[in-house]
Amino acid sequence: MASSFGHLFRITTWGESHGGGVGVVVDGCPPRLALTEADIQPELDRRRPGQSSIVTPRRESDTVQILSGTFEGRTLGTPICLWVRNEDARPEAYTEMASKFRPSHADYTYQAKYGIRNWQGGGRSSARETIGRVAAGAIARKILHERFGVEVLAYVSQVQRLKVSIDPDKVKRADVERNIVRCPHQPMAERMIRLIERVRRAGDSVGGIVEGVARGVPPGWGEPVFDRLEADLAKAMLSLPAARGFDYGSGFSSVLMTGTEHNDALRARGGRVFTKTNRSGGIQGGISNGETIYFRVAFKPVATVMHEQETVDAQFRNTTLKGRGRHDPCVLPRAVPIVEAMTALVLVDHAMRQQAQCGG
Amino acid sequence: MASSFGHLFRITTWGESHGGGVGVVVDGCPPRLALTEADIQPELDRRRPGQSSIVTPRRESDTVQILSGTFEGRTLGTPICLWVRNEDARPEAYTEMASKFRPSHADYTYQAKYGIRNWQGGGRSSARETIGRVAAGAIARKILHERFGVEVLAYVSQVQRLKVSIDPDKVKRADVERNIVRCPHQPMAERMIRLIERVRRAGDSVGGIVEGVARGVPPGWGEPVFDRLEADLAKAMLSLPAARGFDYGSGFSSVLMTGTEHNDALRARGGRVFTKTNRSGGIQGGISNGETIYFRVAFKPVATVMHEQETVDAQFRNTTLKGRGRHDPCVLPRAVPIVEAMTALVLVDHAMRQQAQCGG
Amino acid sequence: MASSFGHLFRITTWGESHGGGVGVVVDGCPPRLALTEADIQPELDRRRPGQSSIVTPRRESDTVQILSGTFEGRTLGTPICLWVRNEDARPEAYTEMASKFRPSHADYTYQAKYGIRNWQGGGRSSARETIGRVAAGAIARKILHERFGVEVLAYVSQVQRLKVSIDPDKVKRADVERNIVRCPHQPMAERMIRLIERVRRAGDSVGGIVEGVARGVPPGWGEPVFDRLEADLAKAMLSLPAARGFDYGSGFSSVLMTGTEHNDALRARGGRVFTKTNRSGGIQGGISNGETIYFRVAFKPVATVMHEQETVDAQFRNTTLKGRGRHDPCVLPRAVPIVEAMTALVLVDHAMRQQAQCGG
Amino acid sequence: MASSFGHLFRITTWGESHGGGVGVVVDGCPPRLALTEADIQPELDRRRPGQSSIVTPRRESDTVQILSGTFEGRTLGTPICLWVRNEDARPEAYTEMASKFRPSHADYTYQAKYGIRNWQGGGRSSARETIGRVAAGAIARKILHERFGVEVLAYVSQVQRLKVSIDPDKVKRADVERNIVRCPHQPMAERMIRLIERVRRAGDSVGGIVEGVARGVPPGWGEPVFDRLEADLAKAMLSLPAARGFDYGSGFSSVLMTGTEHNDALRARGGRVFTKTNRSGGIQGGISNGETIYFRVAFKPVATVMHEQETVDAQFRNTTLKGRGRHDPCVLPRAVPIVEAMTALVLVDHAMRQQAQCGG
Repeated sequence: MASSFGHLFRITTWGESHGGGVGVVVDGCPPRLALTEADIQPELDRRRPGQSSIVTPRRESDTVQILSGTFEGRTLGTPICLWVRNEDARPEAYTEMASKFRPSHADYTYQAKYGIRNWQGGGRSSARETIGRVAAGAIARKILHERFGVEVLAYVSQVQRLKVSIDPDKVKRADVERNIVRCPHQPMAERMIRLIERVRRAGDSVGGIVEGVARGVPPGWGEPVFDRLEADLAKAMLSLPAARGFDYGSGFSSVLMTGTEHNDALRARGGRVFTKTNRSGGIQGGISNGETIYFRVAFKPVATVMHEQETVDAQFRNTTLKGRGRHDPCVLPRAVPIVEAMTALVLVDHAMRQQAQCGG
Repeated sequence: MASSFGHLFRITTWGESHGGGVGVVVDGCPPRLALTEADIQPELDRRRPGQSSIVTPRRESDTVQILSGTFEGRTLGTPICLWVRNEDARPEAYTEMASKFRPSHADYTYQAKYGIRNWQGGGRSSARETIGRVAAGAIARKILHERFGVEVLAYVSQVQRLKVSIDPDKVKRADVERNIVRCPHQPMAERMIRLIERVRRAGDSVGGIVEGVARGVPPGWGEPVFDRLEADLAKAMLSLPAARGFDYGSGFSSVLMTGTEHNDALRARGGRVFTKTNRSGGIQGGISNGETIYFRVAFKPVATVMHEQETVDAQFRNTTLKGRGRHDPCVLPRAVPIVEAMTALVLVDHAMRQQAQCGG
Repeated sequence: MASSFGHLFRITTWGESHGGGVGVVVDGCPPRLALTEADIQPELDRRRPGQSSIVTPRRESDTVQILSGTFEGRTLGTPICLWVRNEDARPEAYTEMASKFRPSHADYTYQAKYGIRNWQGGGRSSARETIGRVAAGAIARKILHERFGVEVLAYVSQVQRLKVSIDPDKVKRADVERNIVRCPHQPMAERMIRLIERVRRAGDSVGGIVEGVARGVPPGWGEPVFDRLEADLAKAMLSLPAARGFDYGSGFSSVLMTGTEHNDALRARGGRVFTKTNRSGGIQGGISNGETIYFRVAFKPVATVMHEQETVDAQFRNTTLKGRGRHDPCVLPRAVPIVEAMTALVLVDHAMRQQAQCGG
Repeated sequence: MASSFGHLFRITTWGESHGGGVGVVVDGCPPRLALTEADIQPELDRRRPGQSSIVTPRRESDTVQILSGTFEGRTLGTPICLWVRNEDARPEAYTEMASKFRPSHADYTYQAKYGIRNWQGGGRSSARETIGRVAAGAIARKILHERFGVEVLAYVSQVQRLKVSIDPDKVKRADVERNIVRCPHQPMAERMIRLIERVRRAGDSVGGIVEGVARGVPPGWGEPVFDRLEADLAKAMLSLPAARGFDYGSGFSSVLMTGTEHNDALRARGGRVFTKTNRSGGIQGGISNGETIYFRVAFKPVATVMHEQETVDAQFRNTTLKGRGRHDPCVLPRAVPIVEAMTALVLVDHAMRQQAQCGG
């Protein structure tokens, strides 16, 4: 188990989908930051089940409690423990999973690795684990905003075949939050919502693409050669359940261009260097260059579907299994705050690393 | 600077493209492994400049020397320092770079971050740094082969618009090595070679896709929730110069399927569990499931082109710069052993982590 | 803040003496270990305030709750979060500390470092933080006992000038627990108890020495050159509040001998190597040699005394302060389980590291 | 093997006493620091064999070479690889060690751990490994001096029974370097030298105590709860070959005082807080308080003596072994620069950590 992420702003998540709850310890947070539960809860609410008609109808308030690390509304510089109690646990909904592995879930691999697993709701492999990430990310985002003027946001740009091109320099969070699918292009959002509703009625699921953006990152963040900014972002995103791919800037489509077409010309104005195009996605040589950072994360369709599927039981006998219960037909709307959280966690860690070695 | 990678099989690379050389320290290698320079040199030869007509004609033998960590041809369990001396350094070829930033290179960002840079040949941001990775990767691959029966390989599947579909279960290293572009499909390889030669003559460059494969990985490798196997592979790949994207298994194309179409049915035979399809790319819930692991890495076209481009000088004045000297028109053939090396480094580290917590 | 300890069996403690409680996250625990609160609580009871007439009379049950990481009474291999709620918090007892720094406490240095501090009961610098260590140590000790046959124990060998020589090969935990000062030599224990009671009545405090012992450690644990077994033990012990010194084996007294006198002759019998003497304290070259490991930890007298002392207030004006409230006149009896916990944490981490690199 | 030390200013040493040489990679060094071999060599010269009549007469120049990380005499912020070639290797002097374990050396434990060892001169367990530490420490010391005004020094205060009390606030490096035993009290130094010469003639060895001092450390360095400044110093010192104990401030003798006697009264003058006494050794609650940091390290007598001793051979048969060759009768004079180096490494790492979290 590797439950920690980050070097200087370091988080450790804990908890299973059923049991005492889920949470996170944040170690290394700068002191004297104003922080109460009210800074964190709104992000958890964006991630929460039951928030709209296109996500799982499970009912959990996901109320966060700060157990340590603050005093009189400010951070102490000591570890911040955040806890969200499990509420709507229905282990009985999972009894069939005690003896059968769900296809394309982590049931079989957890069993193979650990020789034991909490089969209730996926246990540790449940997306519920991301609550700790979102809670910690809310703190990271606050630091980025207050101390560095950096803005982080994400949005849905594609659901199955429905896709739209969004300008990372101009997209606004208000537009993202305007609809329940979190796509800032309203007409496309409506089509996406209809698609997801149709897929849900069919007992099936769909995937798509979330794009992440960071604006205002100064030149100099990123630690070559291994902790390049894009490498840490890639790791952060691929550590998310259901994530299948990551690219940044021109990404996979860069391979279709020649070098002459692809290069970002450098220009200077008023003592500041900028690039005329931004195919580099704000990162060159693993280090931010001051332009907008943007990237894409592919999420596969949710593995739980309401159709009977071939699988294997705990005694390694062939059998079948049909999904039931309350599930997301599409993780993307709830993945948006998670992608934002991971982005903020990567960036604040790199801000502190830059400060440590090069003095900010 | 973050020059270390891995937790238990931990490498630290060092060196710039000009200076005393480049190298790597490998700490945590299991003891009593047979190891001499002859185990490492062939991998460096696959990465070497001047190896064929479609790579840079620079002439460096890249001869590796083991400075520590072995005794009478076996590893001691102590740190292994590997060193490759710089030979064909021509700092004078780079004098213009002393005062100008090359577009889409790391010149400007290194200067912004550190306030200083070795402008000779890109210094630390040079792809020459990957020599240490390939050297260490040769050791990792040997351990994987001898102790775990795991085979790692990579190949070129796309150069610009020329692409071919390769079966990761069947591709053979001999076929990859049969041609200088390292594409196992011979007719396509010939077309790719002609394309690269044409691009080179035009003073331009192209990118493409390298696919990586690991066969024989047992179920249970990978450390959720942050060091999921795919997350560490993504980080490893995105830490490579010119890498722009990563996906594994069904990857970005997974978003076009429904869950019902996408899921890998589980089946059992002879006490062993397998999946009927392998859209999961051998990894479920961040842990290997025993199937073939496969993934793609997108490399952008090389930034150095022989045309005049807009850029900025060290005093932040607008100017132009035209690439010269000896450069790769396409990094892909040489990227193949590098992708293999990083894959092997990730896997051997996870093998050891699994052994540590779960006893192998 | 550096709230994590260990590499493979990694703990992260959190919490202040006043607030939501204190706890620990244990990441990397082997799966399938039988574990309930009943395995942990007895160790917390040995550390608890109010357990005897010579420790602080504060009343806290220090009841531990497992929030994650187990299922049906067994560890899952996932992070184990342990939580102890704060009960007998009396912030009003500390109001004077809001504006004055207690001499030889951490009040001034926390303020200097973080620019903020929780002045209630010492906040994070309170010895209450060690609850998380003791709870995690109980798990570590269980693994050592069940999987490696290793026994860890500690005892008080000196209180101020009262000291006794104990044979680390023969001392028994039952004898240690026979009296409230935790000195296995009963007559000396009685004298120590009387001394502590006298010191308490005088409103003063005393320090002393705790000795730690590990028996049954196989040859081969310890990771030169930096994570030598003695180096990690030294760090573990000096990370404890009030610890002032550490030595192992012949320790500081080794300097009085010549090499000829000091060396431990090696002998073999029945295919097993042993030393005739054990001045090396079971560790040679940073690696266990199979003999009993033993070491000493010096604890200074508790800083809180009931006499008026010169100090400084928050505005850096000279003033005086007199300790009040409920304090330990001597930390040693309660330090015994803490020293044991840290010893167990170091050893289990090294057992896992040895397994990872050398296969156990 | 754990060959790395430090978090932000991170060193990785490599090399055995026989083979290609010994060295270190320093990762995380701040950029733009003036640095050439001339900054490092003097410290290696203080550590070098053959420097005086009371150390081993082995002849090695220990000439350092910077292989990477600098450009035009300044650090780049990239990893600095330092290399010292092995010169006076006489493997034939160790042939008996190929088949016999030297008592109180690391021969047996390395064999037990790794199942293999380089028996030539102790291989990795040789004190020659500390060359990398001293070389890296020279850089750390330069940063401390130039950027923080911190002065680090060490000296011999005791050789066997000959001891002297030195004031850590007043001792000067010039006085330490005035004599070959590196004791700043000249009359005592002469007695120590005579003792060591006598011991050497007798074919024996002696140990003693080195004291380390850091002056000018500002309040706020140190990372509770685990990486307390004294904990990291303890680990650094106990990671040295032959080190047996560590204490700081009042250390082991603190146990003889009462709290009232022991506490350091706080006083303020001119907006600056100081302590009237310094029994805390400059560290309170794990964090520097602005006073002089001082500590002691006990070194056991060297294990190699010229007398026949009982031991065991590689087949686990009882035999005898008599030391020969060129050895130090007392490591202390050469340990002084090593203790200084480790102190500087700990401090510069903590300076950077403080800068990262709290902004300097």
